Amino acid sequence: MHRAKKIIMDFKAQNIADFLQGTVEGDANVSVNNVSKIEDGKPGTLSFLANPKYEKFIYETKSSVVLVNKDFHPEKELNVTLIRVDDAYQAFASLLDLVDQFQKQKSGVEQPSFIDESASTGKDLYLGAFAYIGMSSKVGDNVKIYPQAFVGSNVIIGDNTIIFAGAKIYDNSIIGSNCIIHAGAVIGSDGFGFAPKEDGSYRKIPQLGNVVIEDDVEIGANTTIDCATMGSTIIKKGVKLDNLIQIAHNCEVGENTVMAALVGIAGSTKVGKNNMYGGQVGISGHITIGDNVKIGPMTGVSNSIKSDKTVLGTPAMDIDQALKTYVVFRRLPQMREQLNELKKELKELKSKQEG
Amino acid sequence: MHRAKKIIMDFKAQNIADFLQGTVEGDANVSVNNVSKIEDGKPGTLSFLANPKYEKFIYETKSSVVLVNKDFHPEKELNVTLIRVDDAYQAFASLLDLVDQFQKQKSGVEQPSFIDESASTGKDLYLGAFAYIGMSSKVGDNVKIYPQAFVGSNVIIGDNTIIFAGAKIYDNSIIGSNCIIHAGAVIGSDGFGFAPKEDGSYRKIPQLGNVVIEDDVEIGANTTIDCATMGSTIIKKGVKLDNLIQIAHNCEVGENTVMAALVGIAGSTKVGKNNMYGGQVGISGHITIGDNVKIGPMTGVSNSIKSDKTVLGTPAMDIDQALKTYVVFRRLPQMREQLNELKKELKELKSKQEG
Amino acid sequence: MHRAKKIIMDFKAQNIADFLQGTVEGDANVSVNNVSKIEDGKPGTLSFLANPKYEKFIYETKSSVVLVNKDFHPEKELNVTLIRVDDAYQAFASLLDLVDQFQKQKSGVEQPSFIDESASTGKDLYLGAFAYIGMSSKVGDNVKIYPQAFVGSNVIIGDNTIIFAGAKIYDNSIIGSNCIIHAGAVIGSDGFGFAPKEDGSYRKIPQLGNVVIEDDVEIGANTTIDCATMGSTIIKKGVKLDNLIQIAHNCEVGENTVMAALVGIAGSTKVGKNNMYGGQVGISGHITIGDNVKIGPMTGVSNSIKSDKTVLGTPAMDIDQALKTYVVFRRLPQMREQLNELKKELKELKSKQEG
Repeated sequence: MHRAKKIIMDFKAQNIADFLQGTVEGDANVSVNNVSKIEDGKPGTLSFLANPKYEKFIYETKSSVVLVNKDFHPEKELNVTLIRVDDAYQAFASLLDLVDQFQKQKSGVEQPSFIDESASTGKDLYLGAFAYIGMSSKVGDNVKIYPQAFVGSNVIIGDNTIIFAGAKIYDNSIIGSNCIIHAGAVIGSDGFGFAPKEDGSYRKIPQLGNVVIEDDVEIGANTTIDCATMGSTIIKKGVKLDNLIQIAHNCEVGENTVMAALVGIAGSTKVGKNNMYGGQVGISGHITIGDNVKIGPMTGVSNSIKSDKTVLGTPAMDIDQALKTYVVFRRLPQMREQLNELKKELKELKSKQEG
Repeated sequence: MHRAKKIIMDFKAQNIADFLQGTVEGDANVSVNNVSKIEDGKPGTLSFLANPKYEKFIYETKSSVVLVNKDFHPEKELNVTLIRVDDAYQAFASLLDLVDQFQKQKSGVEQPSFIDESASTGKDLYLGAFAYIGMSSKVGDNVKIYPQAFVGSNVIIGDNTIIFAGAKIYDNSIIGSNCIIHAGAVIGSDGFGFAPKEDGSYRKIPQLGNVVIEDDVEIGANTTIDCATMGSTIIKKGVKLDNLIQIAHNCEVGENTVMAALVGIAGSTKVGKNNMYGGQVGISGHITIGDNVKIGPMTGVSNSIKSDKTVLGTPAMDIDQALKTYVVFRRLPQMREQLNELKKELKELKSKQEG
Repeated sequence: MHRAKKIIMDFKAQNIADFLQGTVEGDANVSVNNVSKIEDGKPGTLSFLANPKYEKFIYETKSSVVLVNKDFHPEKELNVTLIRVDDAYQAFASLLDLVDQFQKQKSGVEQPSFIDESASTGKDLYLGAFAYIGMSSKVGDNVKIYPQAFVGSNVIIGDNTIIFAGAKIYDNSIIGSNCIIHAGAVIGSDGFGFAPKEDGSYRKIPQLGNVVIEDDVEIGANTTIDCATMGSTIIKKGVKLDNLIQIAHNCEVGENTVMAALVGIAGSTKVGKNNMYGGQVGISGHITIGDNVKIGPMTGVSNSIKSDKTVLGTPAMDIDQALKTYVVFRRLPQMREQLNELKKELKELKSKQEG
């Protein structure tokens, strides 16, 4: 297999120092084309050293350039070029942001693509080939819609939002500004609602609501968010959802809540603000989770949870109780032996006493 | 963020009363453009009142129009327009169906799209832009295939079936009439079959079977159904699958079975009729689940289950046993303390007796 | 519902015997158009008999032709045509491979499709309609890219790799030779990385790494593999991933490891060689799993595991301990009764002794 070197930028140390308003120590002409952690440094990459715990790595790193704080005093000889800045971590982060923005810099409408004549689009649109914008939809400024993405009818998309390749936005969805919707995500598919008929078959309950996604939300690859039966499924400002998550019809997810992959939330459940969920959590329908709730991975939640709780396990328990319970759980076979031993001893004792 | 009002219809109260063969009480000229629950009523929307438990909401609802039963006698003054009908719930449902059908009314072939010259399509086809119909495939009447959907070669699709944006139907799949396949669903991907080789690597076992989906089936967004190794993976009439479900090769899912999101069923398992599964259930391969089986959320099933059982937990237990078991499970730390206490007491007793 | 017969080939018994260098016994002109298991045999299909345990089925099978070993001596009269070969199982497997290759024989570039002018493609490319190849990407020889698949910028794809309909490969991904990426899979989506801000909202950490998939890897439908924050998420040679799996940023999955559907692996975890995971397994981030580890379905792994272990349960335990633990778990209600009984007896004993 031929493995190419990934190039995400191409700068000399001096250029980077200029951008960061720092000073070079060493070869100002050395070029870097990627970033790396200082402990995994590779030639041609740039690393940073902020946490003194990592200082030992700077003496052996293979990175070509390392960002360091102004007051860094090496204790041994160095083989790398240094760039001294006020705050090495912040400088590194702003450099990453710059590269990221540069990489995502795309504009123009590739052909063939499809924009319904009743749709409107804003300034600086990127529309990839084979992307689709349906009837009466309104797309804001500086929006990027990657190839093969689908925007149905009557959809609203705010400014600066990115919709990656093949994401699907059903009719009537409303998406805020500064959102990122990853590839394969499905927004607004029908809620799972069926009324049983007498013969055991089901009648579909029409799903006439929509999905509302507020600003600054990120939705992971292949995550699905169903529309409401009536009204709206709501994902509030700042929510971050990982990949392969299911949010059912009429749910509401509060501001700045983050969920790891493969979480499932059943219909009409309200999740508060600033929650954090591990992977594969399952939450029943029609319950309420408060604010600042933390739920450990694989936890099964079937009852409402008050604010500020941390829960774990199936059924969900307070974290302290859960940890104690699982310790005992792992010793169940020994516990049964002890119980049997006790029974035996008690029997002997009884027979002695009676004998 | 600019949040538009969602408009799903635009009727006056009198028009709706005429359609439902009901009578108006109040302002016959008031317009409604959406539906809402009576307890969440908003101006410009239509609600219904059927269950007397909800009667209290009609006196304070902000809905503009409420459907009520003919014999409804308000106990207080009302601010809303009423439409009296024989059965308010049924009338509301038929109105939703009408709106739903109206919203999904699409026809015509958008360009560019791809129909292989050897494929055949029926009357009143809707084919979205960038949709694909492969060699020798046969598509029935009144079928809707949304943008970017893929229909491979030798596929058969029955009448009135809807395939939403970006769903992928592999070669040789057979899909019945009146089915709905949601965005991103994958039908007929290769079964997961590999034969180990002596060096620890694997040889792919060709997956030459197909998927057969009978009539009236709904498949959720991003759900995957693998083709059989030989023969068919079969989803029977009336089955409803939620989002992100995995049905492996050679499975069979019986009539009118419904499954919530993130369920996984391993290869060659047969599921009976009228089953109901909660979310994130996992079922092992090569087992048989009877008819009318209910499986609680997150349950792990590794053995066959007879008809009419309700099971819960991992490992799956009869619901009664499971509920009792989980009650004790949550008290394990206390139980261990009790056990330790008993040991101590018994030891004391013994030493007294012996002493 | 009209259910067509699936035709995957069309050969006479004599043609097949010639190809397999075998000899026909019975009607050499009978045609077969599909394969079946001997116990499910249907007219017009070909089966095989290798394992003597299945011999009873050959006397009643409805298959038209059965491959048997040269030395097979029927004990009763047969109604099927036999083809005698050296090794019936191997002959059947090579026939399946042939049919499989034949079915997947596709070439040419369908229109409209999109190849950026800076991209390069190899010999015998199949590029389906509405497929996309972005800037500077390099596609090897004999690659098949199905309709609506997306290959971003700076992507490398090795020889003989197949990318099914609608799979999405983000920028900078590197994919080896002889790989199969199924429909809807997403390779290289952003890792889930956010830094908390003081107001409770999050700042996105740019995800500038990529995904490297080595040779002979198969990725299931709708599976997602995130790019690394820096560096690469690595899927090594011979790995086989089922559908709807999540591999987070900076993970590494060792050679020939296989995982069933709906598994989730959190960020920066290293998985060794030749592992086997059941469905819905969850693995925490930043841990290390050794070589030859087997993990039972639905197991939750939060700590590193050494090579050659087999684990099951949540929390993960050695398989022997897990099986014993679950036996006791199911008897917890009885165990509590026993404990209560013991307490009572002990109390009585004490009161007698003291009395």
